[in-house]
Amino acid sequence: MSHYSPETKIGYLGGGQLARMLAESAHRAGLQPHVLCSNALEPAGQVTSHTHLGSLDALGDVTAFLKSVDVATFESEFLDSAVLIEAQKATETPIYPAPSLMVLLQDRKSQKQLFDENRLSSSPWAAVDTIEAIDAFIQRHKLPVVFKKRFFGYDGCGTFIIKSKVQLADFVKQQFKKELFIVEKFIPFQKEMAVILARSLDGSFTHLPFVESFQKDARCDWVKGPIKPKDNKKMLTSLKSFLKKLDYVGVMGVEFFVTNQGTIINEIAPRVHNTGHYSQCTPGLSQFDLHNMCLLGQKLPREIKIKQGFAMANLIGQGKDIEFKTTEGLHWYGKAENRPGRKMGHINALGKNPKDALKKVLDKRKRIQL
Amino acid sequence: MSHYSPETKIGYLGGGQLARMLAESAHRAGLQPHVLCSNALEPAGQVTSHTHLGSLDALGDVTAFLKSVDVATFESEFLDSAVLIEAQKATETPIYPAPSLMVLLQDRKSQKQLFDENRLSSSPWAAVDTIEAIDAFIQRHKLPVVFKKRFFGYDGCGTFIIKSKVQLADFVKQQFKKELFIVEKFIPFQKEMAVILARSLDGSFTHLPFVESFQKDARCDWVKGPIKPKDNKKMLTSLKSFLKKLDYVGVMGVEFFVTNQGTIINEIAPRVHNTGHYSQCTPGLSQFDLHNMCLLGQKLPREIKIKQGFAMANLIGQGKDIEFKTTEGLHWYGKAENRPGRKMGHINALGKNPKDALKKVLDKRKRIQL
Repeated sequence: MSHYSPETKIGYLGGGQLARMLAESAHRAGLQPHVLCSNALEPAGQVTSHTHLGSLDALGDVTAFLKSVDVATFESEFLDSAVLIEAQKATETPIYPAPSLMVLLQDRKSQKQLFDENRLSSSPWAAVDTIEAIDAFIQRHKLPVVFKKRFFGYDGCGTFIIKSKVQLADFVKQQFKKELFIVEKFIPFQKEMAVILARSLDGSFTHLPFVESFQKDARCDWVKGPIKPKDNKKMLTSLKSFLKKLDYVGVMGVEFFVTNQGTIINEIAPRVHNTGHYSQCTPGLSQFDLHNMCLLGQKLPREIKIKQGFAMANLIGQGKDIEFKTTEGLHWYGKAENRPGRKMGHINALGKNPKDALKKVLDKRKRIQL
Repeated sequence: MSHYSPETKIGYLGGGQLARMLAESAHRAGLQPHVLCSNALEPAGQVTSHTHLGSLDALGDVTAFLKSVDVATFESEFLDSAVLIEAQKATETPIYPAPSLMVLLQDRKSQKQLFDENRLSSSPWAAVDTIEAIDAFIQRHKLPVVFKKRFFGYDGCGTFIIKSKVQLADFVKQQFKKELFIVEKFIPFQKEMAVILARSLDGSFTHLPFVESFQKDARCDWVKGPIKPKDNKKMLTSLKSFLKKLDYVGVMGVEFFVTNQGTIINEIAPRVHNTGHYSQCTPGLSQFDLHNMCLLGQKLPREIKIKQGFAMANLIGQGKDIEFKTTEGLHWYGKAENRPGRKMGHINALGKNPKDALKKVLDKRKRIQL
């Protein structure tokens, strides 16, 4: 699709905050954002008049939705990929990134295999289906280790750090039989880092600057940037080849651990990513703009440089009555329920440098009661 | 309203592009944008699920709409102010800027009187109800002169430049009896300039940088900035006092002529303004963010400095099949019909300096077929 117009319909499978911000970008760009979600009051349902009610798991609903749009994408890699593949086949409406890649990336086992096959360094790991496999891994790598649910893990949910034999026995008894897991060597890191990559249908590639990210309670709390890790060129070259090899189309979020031994990949997400939300306030294209451009096959700029400092802080629900004392830099998701621990919005700011920008967003966050 | 929350409903009277961009800003800020328009397919109707169908002239529709929101504003100063005043009285829902000011500003005669009363220099003028009054004005100021319709003029519509006695006779015969006019001395200007002011309900005041604006066919074609006119401090001081005296709440667009004899005001618009659209791409608050903040009584930053060059180019309809070859920097209004001469969208860009940014938007504009 190298030509597009106000008649071009982009379908977003899902009605959460990522679809909301993608739809807002689509409106600006003169494209028609269509949303498939189960309730019109979901975040994305509020920002477009093209809301289709239906279930993301129901082949009939997804097929009908794909029929009504020119190209589609998703905001969560945890959809039923079989449904997407079948609906795509029936309608010939392309979905990007390809559902076949979603299959590979939604399972931490195949995601780790992909890292290994593509020489992207990440922590030592094993898929562990038996107690014997766990024992063998721990014998080799020693405690502590991290167990991660193969499917549906997010924001620390489904992640178990095991430091002692007692904890291990508990984990095996309480969790291990219920789900499929991989185990990883626990990596003591100095800090975490992330980058947003984008690859367009026309093959062009770009990236936003690297950022430092800080997690609290296993959930992204803030990011600041730009930072320039010393091995950034090498990492970007490997990641660019990786995306090309996958024939990946769209934005990808990549999270890293920075350790004494160098930088390794923690995980990747085949979608716009929380660590890229700051790009709404920086000059130039946001990750949402980039993702939509990728779906249309627009040529991407080679690199998006940002000179100013920037930062983003998440607004995490606490179950109180919500009250804003400022809306400056605020991006609110419009979620109906303010549940403790839920991502309700975020605040962006620019500053003289990353530290200054971070101070601004943290100060502003104090003025939002959640 | 010093406290607000996701329950706060802002009502936009009108469904055009200005309401659309205000509604997009409101969504981001966590406020509920409600739109009153006659057709859900109008630009603003597409970007919110809170669209109320009705007529802006019908007291019943406006009253019902005001009842459903906490605060309201308008995107055109040419509404029936009597309807607004009565609906506001009936519902006690505030409308900003106040409809009583709309009355003063929608009539070029009272607008000019306001300039004079507040010592804001503008071109010499007179309200002319008779041929004798025209003759007296021309005798004093000589040709050329400019006749402007007192009501409903925009983008050069309702403006008549008269250079000769023949043209004058024609004008008197064809136009003069049909409408009410003011006449102004024709001002040969070097360039045109504009600035966006904002005054919040809490009394705080801010402004965006001055920009150069260029008109083609009496319609804004592009703006570039920032520029720093030498008398800018004096102008801003006068304008700040002017807004305070009016107890004005909201964004105001001010257009200037830069002449050999100094800078004079051409006209003002009590709303977000085409010459401020660039602020969507510059770091910090846009004019749409500012206007919404004003309605809520948020404290405004003292000044919004922009160091980078920026520019905006309008996309004017030409009646062809629309085709985008890029969506970078594009802001599309989603109008159903691509009529020649109609404002269909605009393109924003940043650059090393104003000239560089202007080159970028003009280059990009070539890639959009209208």
